[in-house]
Amino acid sequence: MNDTPQDTASIEIWFDFASHYSYLAVMRVEDVAAARGVAVRWKPVLLGPVFRAIGWQSSPFIDQKAKGEYAWRDIERQCRKYGLELVRPSVFPRASLTPLRVALAGADEPWIGDFCREVMRMNFARDLDIDSADAVGDALGRLGLPPGPILARALSDTNKLALRTQTEEARRRGLFGAPTFFAGDEMFWGNDRLEDALEHAAGPGRRTARETGE
Amino acid sequence: MNDTPQDTASIEIWFDFASHYSYLAVMRVEDVAAARGVAVRWKPVLLGPVFRAIGWQSSPFIDQKAKGEYAWRDIERQCRKYGLELVRPSVFPRASLTPLRVALAGADEPWIGDFCREVMRMNFARDLDIDSADAVGDALGRLGLPPGPILARALSDTNKLALRTQTEEARRRGLFGAPTFFAGDEMFWGNDRLEDALEHAAGPGRRTARETGE
Repeated sequence: MNDTPQDTASIEIWFDFASHYSYLAVMRVEDVAAARGVAVRWKPVLLGPVFRAIGWQSSPFIDQKAKGEYAWRDIERQCRKYGLELVRPSVFPRASLTPLRVALAGADEPWIGDFCREVMRMNFARDLDIDSADAVGDALGRLGLPPGPILARALSDTNKLALRTQTEEARRRGLFGAPTFFAGDEMFWGNDRLEDALEHAAGPGRRTARETGE
Repeated sequence: MNDTPQDTASIEIWFDFASHYSYLAVMRVEDVAAARGVAVRWKPVLLGPVFRAIGWQSSPFIDQKAKGEYAWRDIERQCRKYGLELVRPSVFPRASLTPLRVALAGADEPWIGDFCREVMRMNFARDLDIDSADAVGDALGRLGLPPGPILARALSDTNKLALRTQTEEARRRGLFGAPTFFAGDEMFWGNDRLEDALEHAAGPGRRTARETGE
């Protein structure tokens, strides 16, 4: 990444569609980033292998029951604060491999934000399966996108491998949960740190996209 | 707790002097609570037995190395944001039984906030032992308080038992980390939720201390 002030400031959001705290961040990130003139780079990642590499059986919210139950109450309050719908999913964490592959294939497409929010709403506001090709195809269809070619690209061997590589990168860079934001090399963990990450990205020495007219 | 609107709104802060995220909250709580007309009830607790009851060996910040290292970086940034000093302690987590006993004995005294902040500064801004009777006596002395009688009361069998009872209560109420705030029965975990806890305590249906003139 080139860090000269001429660039648009950006942050990376590393997330998994299975992750409830990622729901909060995925729904908010484009709005709050745009307000600060910061671009968003979407980094879908499969959290399961990240957790297992650390030595956890599953999500800490599954392995640690007290914390897991508290988290739902916390998320319920946070959703109320942000004006987000929440229906506690009947399956948690939900399998999310297929939509993650689509998100990786489409990470630079203009529809990536809409797609990620649509899948998150299916999981956390409508309690729907998000992993079948049908479910993901429906989501794409609702956005006016052609499911066939997009799914074909997402399910190609090249893209499958690319998601494994990206998950490896997450581990290498020290991720231990999601959402995680990077502003340059600075890591910020959790939806609660989104604003701090943006502050850091847009901070002194950087001009915002708005100021540079980009 | 009587919840009629005539009462002063209050929150409980459950904390351990060994806990770095408790440092952030203990330093801030009286100021931000006073600004909202909310009273603070201090609830010192020994986190070790709470963690062991859950099945953890130690603090999650010790057991999980990646998260532990990240937490220090995060706390460094948060301290900068709040204008708090930070010197990473050479011992972590520090033994904290003696000052916890003093904090319990003095929980309703007018000096409790000053004492808690002084011990936290010793641990996290001056890298000093906080557990010896001398160290705690020095802290009390700096606040113009008589160390002898206060330590005698803190180290009495009754007060030692009272700290065990309070730690049991923490487990019973579902604590799994610190700081934890209660506003009535509503639990909020982590320094990041202090403002939400105060909002809840001062919320609709309650008049603030300021409004009732208390």
